[in-house]
Amino acid sequence: MLSEAVVSASGLPAPKSMDAIMSLCKRRGFVYQASEIYGGINGFWDYGPLGTLLKRNLREAWWQDVVMVPCWGRRGPDGETVSIVPVDTRIIQHPKVWEASGHVAGFNDPMVDCRETRGRYRYDHVQVFVPQNDQPGDKPVFAYVGDQPSEAKQRKRAEKTFGAVKPVALSSLAQPWARVIAPDAEQPGTLTEPRMFNLMFDTVPGAIRDEANKAYLRPETAQGIFVQAKNVWDTNRVRVPFGIAQAGTSFRNEVTPRNFTFRSREFEQMEIEFFVVPPEFLEGDEKTTADPLAWYKFFRDWRMEWWKSVGLGGENLILRDHATDELAHYSTATSDIEYRFPFTSPGFGELEGIAYRGNYDLTQHQKHSGTKLEYRDTGRGEVLPNGSRRGVSYLPHVIEPSAGLDRGVLALLCEAYTKDESRPSPEFMKFHPRVAPIKAAVFPLMDKDGLPEVATKLHAELAKRFARLGMIETDAKGSIGKRYARMDEAGCPFCFTVDAESLKGQSVTCRDRDTGVQTRMAIDSVVGFVGEKLGA
Amino acid sequence: MLSEAVVSASGLPAPKSMDAIMSLCKRRGFVYQASEIYGGINGFWDYGPLGTLLKRNLREAWWQDVVMVPCWGRRGPDGETVSIVPVDTRIIQHPKVWEASGHVAGFNDPMVDCRETRGRYRYDHVQVFVPQNDQPGDKPVFAYVGDQPSEAKQRKRAEKTFGAVKPVALSSLAQPWARVIAPDAEQPGTLTEPRMFNLMFDTVPGAIRDEANKAYLRPETAQGIFVQAKNVWDTNRVRVPFGIAQAGTSFRNEVTPRNFTFRSREFEQMEIEFFVVPPEFLEGDEKTTADPLAWYKFFRDWRMEWWKSVGLGGENLILRDHATDELAHYSTATSDIEYRFPFTSPGFGELEGIAYRGNYDLTQHQKHSGTKLEYRDTGRGEVLPNGSRRGVSYLPHVIEPSAGLDRGVLALLCEAYTKDESRPSPEFMKFHPRVAPIKAAVFPLMDKDGLPEVATKLHAELAKRFARLGMIETDAKGSIGKRYARMDEAGCPFCFTVDAESLKGQSVTCRDRDTGVQTRMAIDSVVGFVGEKLGA
Repeated sequence: MLSEAVVSASGLPAPKSMDAIMSLCKRRGFVYQASEIYGGINGFWDYGPLGTLLKRNLREAWWQDVVMVPCWGRRGPDGETVSIVPVDTRIIQHPKVWEASGHVAGFNDPMVDCRETRGRYRYDHVQVFVPQNDQPGDKPVFAYVGDQPSEAKQRKRAEKTFGAVKPVALSSLAQPWARVIAPDAEQPGTLTEPRMFNLMFDTVPGAIRDEANKAYLRPETAQGIFVQAKNVWDTNRVRVPFGIAQAGTSFRNEVTPRNFTFRSREFEQMEIEFFVVPPEFLEGDEKTTADPLAWYKFFRDWRMEWWKSVGLGGENLILRDHATDELAHYSTATSDIEYRFPFTSPGFGELEGIAYRGNYDLTQHQKHSGTKLEYRDTGRGEVLPNGSRRGVSYLPHVIEPSAGLDRGVLALLCEAYTKDESRPSPEFMKFHPRVAPIKAAVFPLMDKDGLPEVATKLHAELAKRFARLGMIETDAKGSIGKRYARMDEAGCPFCFTVDAESLKGQSVTCRDRDTGVQTRMAIDSVVGFVGEKLGA
Repeated sequence: MLSEAVVSASGLPAPKSMDAIMSLCKRRGFVYQASEIYGGINGFWDYGPLGTLLKRNLREAWWQDVVMVPCWGRRGPDGETVSIVPVDTRIIQHPKVWEASGHVAGFNDPMVDCRETRGRYRYDHVQVFVPQNDQPGDKPVFAYVGDQPSEAKQRKRAEKTFGAVKPVALSSLAQPWARVIAPDAEQPGTLTEPRMFNLMFDTVPGAIRDEANKAYLRPETAQGIFVQAKNVWDTNRVRVPFGIAQAGTSFRNEVTPRNFTFRSREFEQMEIEFFVVPPEFLEGDEKTTADPLAWYKFFRDWRMEWWKSVGLGGENLILRDHATDELAHYSTATSDIEYRFPFTSPGFGELEGIAYRGNYDLTQHQKHSGTKLEYRDTGRGEVLPNGSRRGVSYLPHVIEPSAGLDRGVLALLCEAYTKDESRPSPEFMKFHPRVAPIKAAVFPLMDKDGLPEVATKLHAELAKRFARLGMIETDAKGSIGKRYARMDEAGCPFCFTVDAESLKGQSVTCRDRDTGVQTRMAIDSVVGFVGEKLGA
């Protein structure tokens, strides 16, 4: 429930303020600008203590639910327990990996340069202001990139020239753009035609700096899984269908990093490649229950449930199936799990993509490496006289649920941020207990009369049981209202306060972060209460 | 206990075979060569499923014992609970970070090039074979790099020329090396003088590829902590003394990666920067109990205990205090925790360094960034009339315990590897239960007579309680000896077998991996037994 909810023209509550969210993130140590004391570095963000714990808790939730107890122990569409094993592959791989994957040739953004300012922009991000009611003819139009300071500046200049203006995509104007005034430029006609720019960072391992030794920082963790897939099934007792999962850092040299941590140049992914039997090898009922599209739907739906389970949901989370014309040529089904961020509202931004990729990636790596990557399935093929099967070899098909960890954290931050001016602490963070960095706090109402001793004992009991999952705080100083306010901003779900009654009745108050309501409970029931809320 | 122990001339057991360890690592999916299907990439290694879990367990042990319950809840030398908070900073930072830290100017290795083969070698790694009993005079000598194929080849050539030979360092020969035949070279005199080579990988963020935009992949996680230290103490309720910890990937462009994963180009570190009060601000008893050197000793000794707690120890683990002439100019005390790897034996290789670094790093960043990084200590300084203190500002001093995660994993693998030809499964991995990838296995002795049902139930009970910590296996197929052997190689500490007696007496056998001894225990005591062994 959004306390300051205002319904906008779109019928939605007004988006929360990103400025307020970013300000709280800095103030409470969730997110800092990377290298801030050196003026920062565009597209890179560091996490402070609370942010590090929040990010870790989300990564851990994924790891536990994907690797340790895959899909919450559910059975797949084929009726069997889902099997997923982990790998941990390197950021720098042999450069041919990225030739095979298509990233060297195809992982490009179209860019335009400004000859006057030397600014460079992603072509599809550039918009221009034109007169609201007619075509600009041969008058100048003013280009900008949304969310950048150039937007407001160019709007002013455009309004001075035309009166009311509207934005249109630069690409909708006819070439050449002789009348376009680029962001921060004075003269029209300074933008070049779009040129392709590869999004992979490159570097040179080894001592000899030449083109032949160039390598790349991975733009996704997925290819590390494909390249080692044969090693995994050759050296582990796994049988298709099964998955390989990996969480790790990737890099994309985004031309215009923007929207806080949403489009960063260094980010963390959590990816599963789930290998399934190609449809042509399925028999009987399997043609329905073990079809790749059945597995695709299973993961699509479970991943959506999973994001809900960590605290996203309601109208801000949607599952969007790609239309046929959006699909990559090798994919027959893709959907995105998207969140309505304040900066995308009323639209959505991607948290995770779930794609049925056929055997495209394994085929590419088999071709480029010259190494046979086929899986030997001994449970299929011709029935032999002794009743066993001859076995078949194939490149498994792949379902890929690929999530962004930093984007997940940003969605948790945006979803949790709540403002209610009627509260003594107007800003609070409604994190789900499972991802909250601070799990509980224990306060003596006053720093005297034996209250701190009781609080210390309860704090120690909670810490002993739950410190492995998150911080358990205690604080004896200052007004109780200020102490609650600090915990509200940090998103601590439960504050237990030891007061005079505690000494008589062995009870404490439990304050709920979201409602502010305090209920009294027995001291010896507190550990059980927190355990239940944390599912631990 | 080393079953095949042979005492060598040095009085030590013969080192374990690295070939055998690497072979098991590949065969059982602990470690794979990165990009193996493309011929590999020198200096990079991937982890398979078991290796990923082993590495994760070691990282988790560190995280739990450093961040969640710092130093096992112990009090520091000052009598207070130790406080440590985490951060998560980026691999790519502003390039000035590395100018300030000294890595741009000073993080160099001396290299020699071969004009004939275009090979490049780390100067201090190159050795030459000379005649055993005299100086070579003006005869050629044969250069090689240890552990590289060149060693055996050059030894043969040298022995053909001289008879018995001995190795000496290239640096011990007089310059110029007109008579040195480089590895793989035919002609003498092809090696250049040593030249410095920076160990940082570089890359270019943003669209414009020029020197001004060059950035580096971090060669250590520590500087990310220093650069954000002021943000941490400004936005969190922490008070000096306290620590900031971080685990993450670093890169060093090693000229000659070697010794399996020991000297890799991409590796993971686990670092603590512990900030303490500078000695000149300490008063009374504090001069002893809170002195930086007291904290240094506290961490040095605790880190040594910690490595023992995860299964290293005995004669293979040593704490080595640096001699005065080994210290960096800013450090007054440094020690290394070192492990005797098979490839360093009878010597040792570094796992972790603990250094008292004074305020060198903060001073450098304050100078280069022009940002005041002082900490305001409100509990010190002149006593005011109201009894409070005026407060003082200072750059805290720093104790840095800096550990290598991949090296830790390699030490665990080497320590665990055991060969005993008298066992049905001669090779087994004696992992400490806390780091073992597989925590327990449950086997029905036979795949019939109701045994699988009992095994399935016990497996489910163990998985419910411990799957968050590691794999719980079950397997009903094949001879029980082969099933034990598989678990031995994977380092699973406990196998529980359901047999005919289980049905009558509600008991199972528990087989101990290290001794092979089987003891019978009640089924309903198994969960408690495993919990105790895992400390969970």
